[in-house]
Amino acid sequence: SALTVPPSRLDAAARAALAAVVGEDHLLDTEGERLGRAGGLSYLDLLRRRHPDGLAVPDAVVVPADPDEVQRVVDVCVSHDVGVVPFGGGTSVVGGVAALRGDKEAVIALDLHRLDRLVSVDPTSRLAVFQAGVRGPAAQRLLAAHGLTLGHVPQSFERATLGGFAATRSAGQASSGYGRFEDMVQGVRLATPSGPWRLGVAPASAAGPDLRALAVGSEGTLGVITEVTVRVRPLPERERYEGFVLRGWHDAMHVVRTLAQNGLSADVMRVSDVEETEVTLALKGGVVTSALRGYLAARRVHEPCLLILGWYGRAPQRARALKVLRAAGAVSLGRAPGEAWRHGRFSGPRQRDALLDAGVCVETLETATHWSRLGELHDAVSAALRGALDRPVLMCHISHAYETGASLYFTVLAARDPRDPFGQWERAKQAASEAISGRGTITHHHAVGVDHAPYLRAEIGDVGMSVLSAAKHATDPTNILNPGKLGL
Amino acid sequence: SALTVPPSRLDAAARAALAAVVGEDHLLDTEGERLGRAGGLSYLDLLRRRHPDGLAVPDAVVVPADPDEVQRVVDVCVSHDVGVVPFGGGTSVVGGVAALRGDKEAVIALDLHRLDRLVSVDPTSRLAVFQAGVRGPAAQRLLAAHGLTLGHVPQSFERATLGGFAATRSAGQASSGYGRFEDMVQGVRLATPSGPWRLGVAPASAAGPDLRALAVGSEGTLGVITEVTVRVRPLPERERYEGFVLRGWHDAMHVVRTLAQNGLSADVMRVSDVEETEVTLALKGGVVTSALRGYLAARRVHEPCLLILGWYGRAPQRARALKVLRAAGAVSLGRAPGEAWRHGRFSGPRQRDALLDAGVCVETLETATHWSRLGELHDAVSAALRGALDRPVLMCHISHAYETGASLYFTVLAARDPRDPFGQWERAKQAASEAISGRGTITHHHAVGVDHAPYLRAEIGDVGMSVLSAAKHATDPTNILNPGKLGL
Repeated sequence: SALTVPPSRLDAAARAALAAVVGEDHLLDTEGERLGRAGGLSYLDLLRRRHPDGLAVPDAVVVPADPDEVQRVVDVCVSHDVGVVPFGGGTSVVGGVAALRGDKEAVIALDLHRLDRLVSVDPTSRLAVFQAGVRGPAAQRLLAAHGLTLGHVPQSFERATLGGFAATRSAGQASSGYGRFEDMVQGVRLATPSGPWRLGVAPASAAGPDLRALAVGSEGTLGVITEVTVRVRPLPERERYEGFVLRGWHDAMHVVRTLAQNGLSADVMRVSDVEETEVTLALKGGVVTSALRGYLAARRVHEPCLLILGWYGRAPQRARALKVLRAAGAVSLGRAPGEAWRHGRFSGPRQRDALLDAGVCVETLETATHWSRLGELHDAVSAALRGALDRPVLMCHISHAYETGASLYFTVLAARDPRDPFGQWERAKQAASEAISGRGTITHHHAVGVDHAPYLRAEIGDVGMSVLSAAKHATDPTNILNPGKLGL
Repeated sequence: SALTVPPSRLDAAARAALAAVVGEDHLLDTEGERLGRAGGLSYLDLLRRRHPDGLAVPDAVVVPADPDEVQRVVDVCVSHDVGVVPFGGGTSVVGGVAALRGDKEAVIALDLHRLDRLVSVDPTSRLAVFQAGVRGPAAQRLLAAHGLTLGHVPQSFERATLGGFAATRSAGQASSGYGRFEDMVQGVRLATPSGPWRLGVAPASAAGPDLRALAVGSEGTLGVITEVTVRVRPLPERERYEGFVLRGWHDAMHVVRTLAQNGLSADVMRVSDVEETEVTLALKGGVVTSALRGYLAARRVHEPCLLILGWYGRAPQRARALKVLRAAGAVSLGRAPGEAWRHGRFSGPRQRDALLDAGVCVETLETATHWSRLGELHDAVSAALRGALDRPVLMCHISHAYETGASLYFTVLAARDPRDPFGQWERAKQAASEAISGRGTITHHHAVGVDHAPYLRAEIGDVGMSVLSAAKHATDPTNILNPGKLGL
């Protein structure tokens, strides 16, 4: 079924004003360019690209050169009452870059990929200032030239941008060692309809509420992030990945908690539940499955849970962590499963197209809660998904561990309902979200976008929603920025 | 000069409505009770108590029993258009609890000391829920019964409350190990004029901006914090304090930075500049000063900078930190200076009354910046204070070290100008604040209150100020909460 791209609704005056800012070469309105910024990478986004209807396509793609041009683009869009969807890597899986137009006649995608500079490095303070459009690999390459690293490696790493990481409160695979992206952000620069905004002058402050935390996570609704100042660290001398098998999900949660609460978290620390472990060990790692089963059975491991640890240096912590693992009866699988995980760490999203071709409904969802409720949350979400889908394959892992709790990341596969593929997943997502609400956060690192917006009020309260709206009105009084996201 | 307390301006209807909520016994309007909540503990506050004019006295003190009563008190104050100054320990040194009335006829002090309960403990998740009026020592005692500790020990510890710690973004003396109070806060409950507000359901989240960071640091302007959920840790088996001498301020900054950037920060880590070291070693610690001078001279330490380290357990880190210190040529002074510091850790504020009696102008101020600017900031603030005061004694230390920077804490002593004691300090404070602005944050842990409000706009921008105002309007549309603080 061929996609029909509606004609651009951007009027000539607005188009001319935008072209005057960025130059005609950087105002793109071919069908291909517009389609390339029509939504993100959720299962429903992928489905929409295979069906003619329901895809929100921006009326033009505007590609400013630098933060000042971003501000001028925003100013033009205020003057002409045009919606603006900030667009970084386009990897949102929650509808965060859907080209919704709210009450506006036209909406543009503001593509930040030309903001690709490392602005400055302060090795003494371990700080780097990046323009917002720098992608993960470029950031690492630019820093490596200074012997530094960011240590932020989410699954979206290859395409996503630093501005996007900040806008969505991203958490990378090495968050147990390097922190969430919001922990790295020391400063932000935004272009807002109310003018330029800079925050962050010190490592810590008591100068009123930390407004950086309002800019970070604002998902393009309060302003367009144009620069981020991030904490960086020396490149580790070595990275070491290794695998262990733990004895059942309950023990697995306990071991990861013990490590996290004793300062012994690996930089990457990820433990799979029994179902995910079975799928992982059968599919990957070059491990001969039946031999492995025998090996584990001989060690009385009947419900194996695969633990992957990645160490960026930190040999002393590793030595102490291994003692904890031995005491817990963990069985070492050596480096092969760790290296297999590393090899495939970004490939999950790419595999989905093949699964879609094969008629599979495949999506992920994630949450987090405190340790004492983690088992309950795992079971409640699993039960909700099993209730909403016909014999799904459910896999789950903890990928981010904190002193007080951890995240849960579910991968869901089911036979796609060809009569109602959208409704099938929407009902499953709703069931899972209702199971999460009251037990954990509606999203640990995927952000809110459109998909989680119905559940935000329950999490931050009526007062929280009105505070968000008020902040929005202060920075974006005519409501041009990323319409329909965050429930705003 | 006797203090004149103006008569209460609280009208009879409002008084009756408040008494109906808390009971007649908990509505206090004697001169003594009102005077007891008239401002905080800054030098100017102490001066004001010695002079008849300029002391803002609340019209009544209202002491609710629990979070629900706090909400009802707030609701009554909305109905009767009465200002509300939330009052915890009353230890603000920036005018944060000044009983300003803004455009209101009357203002009450809302004293939270009856909210003194440990509501719940979750040892698995390392979480505790406290009512906001619990003071530092009570929190420690209540947690110790569970084998736990908060690890938050600011100089105000003995009087200040957990609600106050959250409202002001407090940082304790053990912040290098335990983090700032805002790092410990996992959840907050507030009473606002727009209704109750709860935040914080998970250890981490990407559910839009982290609104906890807006509640924390709001200094009573957005709502009255009634409960805080905090991360707790097992009581350390031992505490060990020790002293070292480093070789000059430049080396001292370098050593502390090296420790902070290599995961080797002591829980308490504090290094004094040369001036503070000279005063400290001459006055305290039971060290025979001349003998010490000889000892240091023999080791070619000509500009000694005293480093105090406090370890709560963590023997492995200490062993590695000592290697760094040895490599830097640090001279160990053993435990005596550490124990002397511990003994006097809360006594600074108490010594001021004696100094005031002796005609001394004595105050502290603090800031923070990134490592690469720390030396410049130290020198700029020192020069500004020397320019504004006649031959002051200036002492400074780093008490909070981060990967990317550190705080500076100045103690200032000068002969008080008897003709204009207020103007004398106000000019010095202004000079210091202007030296700070653009080089660091206007406050690292003292908060904004009234005194830092003139400098807030430069730090968070016009957009930041309008966002704060908008948030204020959303939670407190009639502007009853803590009038005049945060520039709101």
